[in-house]
Amino acid sequence: MKPRIAIDAMGGDEGVPVMIAGAALARHRHENFQFLLVGDETQIKSALDQHPNLRAASEILHSDVVVTGDDKVSAALRKAKTSSMGMAIDAVKSGHASAAVSAGNTGALMATAKLALRTMPGIDRPALSALLPTLEDTDVVMLDLGANTECEAKNLVQFAVMGAAYSRIIFGFDRPRVRLLNIGTEEMKGTDQLRDAAQHLRDATGLNMDFQGFVEADKINRGECDVVVCDGFTGNIALKSIEGTARFVTDLLRRAFTSSIRSKFGFLVSRPATELLRHHLDPNNHNGAVFMGLNGVVVKSHGSANIKGVANAVEVAARLVEEDITARITQDLARIQAE
Amino acid sequence: MKPRIAIDAMGGDEGVPVMIAGAALARHRHENFQFLLVGDETQIKSALDQHPNLRAASEILHSDVVVTGDDKVSAALRKAKTSSMGMAIDAVKSGHASAAVSAGNTGALMATAKLALRTMPGIDRPALSALLPTLEDTDVVMLDLGANTECEAKNLVQFAVMGAAYSRIIFGFDRPRVRLLNIGTEEMKGTDQLRDAAQHLRDATGLNMDFQGFVEADKINRGECDVVVCDGFTGNIALKSIEGTARFVTDLLRRAFTSSIRSKFGFLVSRPATELLRHHLDPNNHNGAVFMGLNGVVVKSHGSANIKGVANAVEVAARLVEEDITARITQDLARIQAE
Repeated sequence: MKPRIAIDAMGGDEGVPVMIAGAALARHRHENFQFLLVGDETQIKSALDQHPNLRAASEILHSDVVVTGDDKVSAALRKAKTSSMGMAIDAVKSGHASAAVSAGNTGALMATAKLALRTMPGIDRPALSALLPTLEDTDVVMLDLGANTECEAKNLVQFAVMGAAYSRIIFGFDRPRVRLLNIGTEEMKGTDQLRDAAQHLRDATGLNMDFQGFVEADKINRGECDVVVCDGFTGNIALKSIEGTARFVTDLLRRAFTSSIRSKFGFLVSRPATELLRHHLDPNNHNGAVFMGLNGVVVKSHGSANIKGVANAVEVAARLVEEDITARITQDLARIQAE
Repeated sequence: MKPRIAIDAMGGDEGVPVMIAGAALARHRHENFQFLLVGDETQIKSALDQHPNLRAASEILHSDVVVTGDDKVSAALRKAKTSSMGMAIDAVKSGHASAAVSAGNTGALMATAKLALRTMPGIDRPALSALLPTLEDTDVVMLDLGANTECEAKNLVQFAVMGAAYSRIIFGFDRPRVRLLNIGTEEMKGTDQLRDAAQHLRDATGLNMDFQGFVEADKINRGECDVVVCDGFTGNIALKSIEGTARFVTDLLRRAFTSSIRSKFGFLVSRPATELLRHHLDPNNHNGAVFMGLNGVVVKSHGSANIKGVANAVEVAARLVEEDITARITQDLARIQAE
């Protein structure tokens, strides 16, 4: 399937030029990508002046209504028919586009997408998934990161199926190693929901994943599993603890490196090393959180993503379309329901 | 009150000599400390040969039964009357010692302490608290870190009272800034338990704390609050995410610094900076997790703590005794119950 990506041009903190330049970079890398650029026509046209390649592959859909970062979910839903975010998602619903990418307000995007696209058959609740860096070359897929504060066992099982499909598509694994996030690895650890979900996944046969039980939060980044599954409360706590600590350590490091002349000199000499660290931790290299479980692909780009980050999010969306993530999830769900 | 600390000499990964040397270091810093050294008499006496100062301030209580790291809680409880861990705690119960320090198996220590000492009046469930480094000079107190997988609102309120008392004693704050760990800072975020606990803490007057609502997990280390309160599941996830990420970033850094000759040279020049980082993150500088809410002070030292770490844990125990943590908690509980 030739991907045609609807871009909410108005959502990012960096404005229309960065969203358009990101799309142009993705287009530059993939000649078959088509685009539907949704937002203020004047601003989009002006940004396209720099990117004739993208212009040739794009259609513009005008909207002068913007969902802001401060908009409550209710406000965003009221303007779902006219906002650039809502119209980008509606294009997916009508088949005019095959996926939508927005850097807008996460809560608003999630609610708008869920209302317009509905959850796919066999999925009770959609989940927000993201890629996190590991010590290895591939990222770990983690979900849910905040769509569902509380979850039942069946939700966790469905998240495992969705996360495994995502990992297979993006990293090409045949059977990604899947684990449930818990406070210990022994079978009796954690909540009833976790123990029940683990039992279901152990019992299921023929799934396109290698379920390996529980993982503790200090092992998420070790590169020892490919998909980490949890409820949205736990996922949010873990993700933000990880983000906060990465910033904390780099802040300490900066402070340490600037605390003496000798250290400053060392810092300059070793800048390639700290650049490598920054590159590895840069969220732009892992950009593209996916709302999984809807009838259509919707990718959230970081609000502060740069051009490369937006291009990554577009590529994630396109890969999920090309590899038909919905069909892959449906296939595994059928295997679970057949048990 | 003159602190007399019962040391479970057998619990640490590093063996009797490190536990004894840690106690000796604490004794060296505080002439009024007394000790009850519990464990194999021959090994303890041999370790004391290096530390005449400590020997002069110590009594030995022989035990040849050890709770191992692999012992299940049930096994540890069966030998509670004869093990070094159990006897150290029993000394607190009988008044023979004023606090116990053990580097043994956390689950076993928690269960043994709870059974022997019981929860103090007004506390429904004890909690495990620890100190985490921040960008500022003082650590943040975090609890519960795993004693209670699920909690009601009243448990969280009690944890807040206990954590605030701990912070006041260790860091000398009059009114520590207390927050509940949540997935957002708006009042309607999170679970019913969190919202109810926040309401209780907002309504309570005259508490020795400044309750400031919710905190997200990426802000734990910013030095913007002094006590972070959560259920034990969430606390374990956050703590291990933090530990894992700190290790992850330092692993990446080491790899980056050794990836080229130029970086290696920079690393040598800037070693004081990375030493400062290591010092700040070193768990030994924040050692001493406290079981709060029992009729007696029990401190868990890291299994892998070094001499300095053990000394820190002993000092934490002594401070909690000297400043009478139980009385401070009781005072605040009375204020809440008077509402």
